[in-house]
Amino acid sequence: MRDFYPEDMKLRNRIFDAWRSSATASGFEQYDACVVESLELLQRKAGEEIVNQIYAFEDKSGRNLALRPEMTPTLARMVAARQGALSFPIKWFTIAQCFRYERMTRGRKREHYQLNLDIIDEDSVAAEAEVIYTAISALRRMGVPDSAYKVRVSNRALLSELLVSLGIEKEFHSGVFMALDKKGKIPREEIEGLMRAENLDDSACSAAFDLMDISTLEDAEQIAGESSPSAARISELFALLADYGVADQAVFDISVIRGLSYYTGIVFEAFDVKGEFRAIFGGGRYDNLLSAIGGKPASAVGLGFGDVVIGEIIQSLGLEETTSLECVAIGYMTDDERSVATRLAGKLRSEGRNVTLQTRPAKAKAFFSFAGANATHAVFIGPDDRLSGKANLKNLATREQTAIDLV
Amino acid sequence: MRDFYPEDMKLRNRIFDAWRSSATASGFEQYDACVVESLELLQRKAGEEIVNQIYAFEDKSGRNLALRPEMTPTLARMVAARQGALSFPIKWFTIAQCFRYERMTRGRKREHYQLNLDIIDEDSVAAEAEVIYTAISALRRMGVPDSAYKVRVSNRALLSELLVSLGIEKEFHSGVFMALDKKGKIPREEIEGLMRAENLDDSACSAAFDLMDISTLEDAEQIAGESSPSAARISELFALLADYGVADQAVFDISVIRGLSYYTGIVFEAFDVKGEFRAIFGGGRYDNLLSAIGGKPASAVGLGFGDVVIGEIIQSLGLEETTSLECVAIGYMTDDERSVATRLAGKLRSEGRNVTLQTRPAKAKAFFSFAGANATHAVFIGPDDRLSGKANLKNLATREQTAIDLV
Repeated sequence: MRDFYPEDMKLRNRIFDAWRSSATASGFEQYDACVVESLELLQRKAGEEIVNQIYAFEDKSGRNLALRPEMTPTLARMVAARQGALSFPIKWFTIAQCFRYERMTRGRKREHYQLNLDIIDEDSVAAEAEVIYTAISALRRMGVPDSAYKVRVSNRALLSELLVSLGIEKEFHSGVFMALDKKGKIPREEIEGLMRAENLDDSACSAAFDLMDISTLEDAEQIAGESSPSAARISELFALLADYGVADQAVFDISVIRGLSYYTGIVFEAFDVKGEFRAIFGGGRYDNLLSAIGGKPASAVGLGFGDVVIGEIIQSLGLEETTSLECVAIGYMTDDERSVATRLAGKLRSEGRNVTLQTRPAKAKAFFSFAGANATHAVFIGPDDRLSGKANLKNLATREQTAIDLV
Repeated sequence: MRDFYPEDMKLRNRIFDAWRSSATASGFEQYDACVVESLELLQRKAGEEIVNQIYAFEDKSGRNLALRPEMTPTLARMVAARQGALSFPIKWFTIAQCFRYERMTRGRKREHYQLNLDIIDEDSVAAEAEVIYTAISALRRMGVPDSAYKVRVSNRALLSELLVSLGIEKEFHSGVFMALDKKGKIPREEIEGLMRAENLDDSACSAAFDLMDISTLEDAEQIAGESSPSAARISELFALLADYGVADQAVFDISVIRGLSYYTGIVFEAFDVKGEFRAIFGGGRYDNLLSAIGGKPASAVGLGFGDVVIGEIIQSLGLEETTSLECVAIGYMTDDERSVATRLAGKLRSEGRNVTLQTRPAKAKAFFSFAGANATHAVFIGPDDRLSGKANLKNLATREQTAIDLV
């Protein structure tokens, strides 16, 4: 579990502020829920892998609770509870802390914060375009250059069409997806083993694995047929991303599948171009989740964007904030100046300035050393200033001084 | 546990934004830590009442963990861990979720968020003035009028002096504080019973209880003696609050004691003047906590300000946000306009405007009904607009229209 000291909070606030402002700029409304969730709800929906990693506990009245591993079941619960009252489609976002009990590695902690963007009850691919654009917009607000990452896009429905063209029936697809999603993490033999365990024969396993070599949308269309609706959907998404001016960041990648079983259509994952980090964000269409939670059926698109990987990337790119927040440090020489110093602090703050007031008298040298480390401007009040009713406001960067009235 | 739907988040963000901006304006630096904390740390420091209400659980490796009931032990742990590296005094704040398993009543939930302001290693009463001023400044930023509440201030050290003047020895004071703190919650007989259980005789119990009738600082000084250092400290605090322009909000109240055992000096609680709600914020000086956690001794002042009571007060005063965030709704008549609508949304967002783009074609009437509920401005693009390359940006409040170029 992470502690956030003030220097860590600067980076976290920068990420959170970019998330919140880009989601708000795209018309998403914020929601939240308690980090403690019903274990039963989480188990009903989450993938097998997640269920084993849930931090579960029992409360004093015997209820089975858990620290949520992801926000989507909670979102589905909240939407289902008010499905009659909400005006659809809804566009919601949250910045939620999530927990997983797992081995800690780079880019993976036992708890992290995640921006979730969801659009519910919108069938058109405009929903996918909107969440991908908004995540890219957040990266831009953090200062991450467009050239530093790619959003890899595929469509599970297209992969389904391709599997059908190989003679692999629909009932096997879910198992094949989960096996192929492991590509790059475990050897080919193990992946084919997983598929054989789903009752696929050797040639089907091998053919399914070879689909991962398809490198362009055109090649996929050649196999699936030019009228493939799921390939057309990807093209339509790329056209909308071009309208948003973010076409260069998006690429087709048949091997993007996503680990969660509830995705039904377009899926995507953003990675740094050097391949040094885990996924920056990911998501896709999940059209059956709301009905699984007990709501009326509604289509949905979601995106998750964690704080750990992007924090590592910001640091690796040397993008840490260099300019400090404007702040006036006020110091004073003796107890006699404390009152005027306090009045000045109150006045400047009420004018909207950030002011850090020394809590005790100090020598000028010690004060300016503190001010240099913590502020952009400084006022040091001595007995003469108190008597004259004037002091100097010093810009610590330019050394410029302005006379300021004491009150 | 609370769900926050978008309308609830508006109120919560307003409270959090006022907290963060006022703390930053006063030069506090933000920190945070995971809501899961070591049970042992929490038990080492918390009061008896809190220990019984901790949400504790065991993780898979058998560690005893808990959802923190308050942030102060975590703060002490973090400060103690870096005591050699930090430059004191430090001024830190956090907005932390805290949990207590207890019966839910108005103003009291099983989880809440709390602004914590702490100043560590500052002996002077400037520390108390700074945290009280900053909390008042947050209330002002929320629009709560100065006349709506009072900050009641006392000093446990003064109450100690008064008890000594009655012949009650120091060793009994902690028990007497905890008993007298129950005034107004349980009958006088029960409070005196609690004191008798601490081995005070009947006349001492009665005399201690009567101290709660002292109504002015002058009366307290008459009993404690005019040179009472702890009464002088309260006067000094009031003078600094006057320098900050918030003297009218502060009153002396000998009956303010606070329930936590670790306070050692000045204590304070803010209440609405009508007495309808629980405390808005409270805090005080706790000079021995850091050494109890294992750090070097350091004086400290802290303030806690929860989101539940202030949320109720904002609603009871009718102060809910009435103006909505500036936002442009963009709609379009047919699929042919989707591309220009998307380009316009991207352009306006990149200029810093908030834009909610309709995800599908709509009739003008349905679009303007949506825009009226969700936006301050609207652009509706039809085939003619697409062909002419111009559309109208309508201010929904003034009905004023401005021509806007499509891109």
